[in-house]
Amino acid sequence: MDFNKAIQAMAKDAKQSARSLRVAKRAEKDAALEFMAEQILSKKEEIITTNAKDTTIARENGLNPAMIDRLTIDEKTITSMIAGLHEVAALPDPVGEVTGMWKRPNGLQVGQIRIPLGVIGFIYESRPNVTVDAAALCIKSGNAVLLKGGSEAIHSNLILNEILSKSLKKANLPEKSIQVIPYKEHEVVGILLSMDEYVDIIIPRGGEGLISYVVENSRIPVLKHFKGVCHVYVDEFADLEMAQKICYNAKVQRPGVCNAMETMLVHKTIATSFLPGMIEEFIRAGVEIRACENTLRLIPHLTLAKESDWPTEYLDLILAVKIVEDMNEAIDHIERYGSHHTEAIVTNDYKRSQEFLERVDASVVLINASTRFNDGFELGLGAEIGINTSKLHAYGPMSLKELTTTKFIVYGSGQVRT
Amino acid sequence: MDFNKAIQAMAKDAKQSARSLRVAKRAEKDAALEFMAEQILSKKEEIITTNAKDTTIARENGLNPAMIDRLTIDEKTITSMIAGLHEVAALPDPVGEVTGMWKRPNGLQVGQIRIPLGVIGFIYESRPNVTVDAAALCIKSGNAVLLKGGSEAIHSNLILNEILSKSLKKANLPEKSIQVIPYKEHEVVGILLSMDEYVDIIIPRGGEGLISYVVENSRIPVLKHFKGVCHVYVDEFADLEMAQKICYNAKVQRPGVCNAMETMLVHKTIATSFLPGMIEEFIRAGVEIRACENTLRLIPHLTLAKESDWPTEYLDLILAVKIVEDMNEAIDHIERYGSHHTEAIVTNDYKRSQEFLERVDASVVLINASTRFNDGFELGLGAEIGINTSKLHAYGPMSLKELTTTKFIVYGSGQVRT
Repeated sequence: MDFNKAIQAMAKDAKQSARSLRVAKRAEKDAALEFMAEQILSKKEEIITTNAKDTTIARENGLNPAMIDRLTIDEKTITSMIAGLHEVAALPDPVGEVTGMWKRPNGLQVGQIRIPLGVIGFIYESRPNVTVDAAALCIKSGNAVLLKGGSEAIHSNLILNEILSKSLKKANLPEKSIQVIPYKEHEVVGILLSMDEYVDIIIPRGGEGLISYVVENSRIPVLKHFKGVCHVYVDEFADLEMAQKICYNAKVQRPGVCNAMETMLVHKTIATSFLPGMIEEFIRAGVEIRACENTLRLIPHLTLAKESDWPTEYLDLILAVKIVEDMNEAIDHIERYGSHHTEAIVTNDYKRSQEFLERVDASVVLINASTRFNDGFELGLGAEIGINTSKLHAYGPMSLKELTTTKFIVYGSGQVRT
Repeated sequence: MDFNKAIQAMAKDAKQSARSLRVAKRAEKDAALEFMAEQILSKKEEIITTNAKDTTIARENGLNPAMIDRLTIDEKTITSMIAGLHEVAALPDPVGEVTGMWKRPNGLQVGQIRIPLGVIGFIYESRPNVTVDAAALCIKSGNAVLLKGGSEAIHSNLILNEILSKSLKKANLPEKSIQVIPYKEHEVVGILLSMDEYVDIIIPRGGEGLISYVVENSRIPVLKHFKGVCHVYVDEFADLEMAQKICYNAKVQRPGVCNAMETMLVHKTIATSFLPGMIEEFIRAGVEIRACENTLRLIPHLTLAKESDWPTEYLDLILAVKIVEDMNEAIDHIERYGSHHTEAIVTNDYKRSQEFLERVDASVVLINASTRFNDGFELGLGAEIGINTSKLHAYGPMSLKELTTTKFIVYGSGQVRT
């Protein structure tokens, strides 16, 4: 099989489709999304049966139960796919928004208008519902998409692709605007990353290994989400009750996600009043504590943190704890070990809150709120396709607007340059 | 010499400097720029003498006169460097602008605030005045910059670096915010492109060879400017006198730049009335015409265009000319051969003008104006650091705002996720 030729043909079709999508009306795009929702509902038995092929093979291959759980499509997954499609259909169309317009001294009227990016290459791991979510966001923002999902989900992704493409056709949009790459071979990813003539942007979603591979091998710009090593800094002027609530939420409410707190930084002045109660609460919730030496002096039975704990994304009920001299030390620690994802301060001091907000370099910086709010929906952007921790194009959660760019439009009346 | 170690040390210093620049006040940044202007004026003899070293070596190495001209710093270059510094100082500070703020149902106040990108790696060819222009834009937008200029300009760039760094120090900003990479060896570029731990973005400015090398080898996001294959489409409903003025300006006023017209597309209905006079005018101006077969039927003595003419950026007094059936053919031609840089239509038909504006995918699309207006200053953005023809982050001319990104800021009062 000549994968290069096959992927190139798909990429060409995507680019061709993108030309029509670029000028598609909102009504057409929304109709396609609603058809998708209808079709997924009416074909749910078929989807679930096909998905069983994937889960059976996965079980035979000895995949762990958590992975199989992520791979499984059940009634609940179907409902959430459908809800996602309705949600995206209800969001405003970002395309066509004029973000600014001004007049030049020579009478030229210059503006910037929001347009789709073109063709998006989306590379992700095994959850097949992501196929539908990502496709919906891409279509609504006027982009064609090439989807390279995990190979364990191949049968599920292909039947979803068929349903999505038929719905596009029914709405008079090009079928090939959504294409699942049907090959399991690993080399296919490398080939996709070389198609810079056709693909405008690559969005990888998965573990650090996948992201690193993509960054190293792509000729196409990448919007990447590395890890979330998020901190909460409890300042000496914090409302300690509020701090306790926020830190508990940031760590315990859902420890396996990127916006969960991994390290808690505590100002030395309040360490004695705050830490014992807080840590007791964490331990009751099953959180394993890795503490700095000063914390150990206060609460001796804890495990001593190693240097390797500070930059670690546990994604688990584990928390590193450090007592700091002052806010400067907290900010220095965040600068050194953080991952530019989400950082929070708890304080009632006005100056400190403003300074933390200004000095900390992260995609989302919060005062007196849980790190768990770094999420497209929670911040009010609508559904998200990922969180970008590199600064280009969109820093933070990416939703519809972040899947577009702007071009300049110029209304003249015969102007020339002198 | 261990270049890897040396470049890494510079990149680390840049990153450290970026931390201070991130929170520098506008007054400090403007003061630094004004000191730079003062210092360049007071040290102009020294700059010109040092530059003579570069031009002497260049002459000995047999560089062509045009290259030597670009390399030379004379009184006029000094004046333009100083004017550029004043101009950038006068521009508003993009950093700190809140681009939006909204309230969530739970009372969280969410906003987006403009912040610097961090560390910019700027790779460019031989003009030493670019060193000053680029440094000024980077400092004003709060970014540290690593400058890798052409090796022919090394002495000039190093003395400029000394002056710029001293001015930063005088304004209490970190000296190492501006660093010219002092090595001529080619491998240095590859090393710079691997410093993704410290460098946030790479901007290459130069020929296609340089750009391709950078795109292929960079682990860091690249804002790139490929070629400008710009078209003017003269519609059947054009004001022919206006069309003649615009096409002449787009081709002849400065043919060696990226926003000059390379191909003129003419609607068949007006070909007979428009082309003979227009082409006569071009020929009088010394323009060599490469025409399609239909044009040759009208004006037989012209050269027949080859397939290879359509995607060519001549950067010279050469023009490809094609008669098209209708606007669709014009747009298809642009889609196939254009470079997403600048595209213009001349028409008095309302529907056509709107359709061209919507359907054509280029960083700047103009109605009834010369392609030569694709320029940061002409569009009203202020000085520009380059024109981006890829769609991510900033499509089109990049000025101060495009050297920044936004982060989310969240004002809470104890909110947690449920």
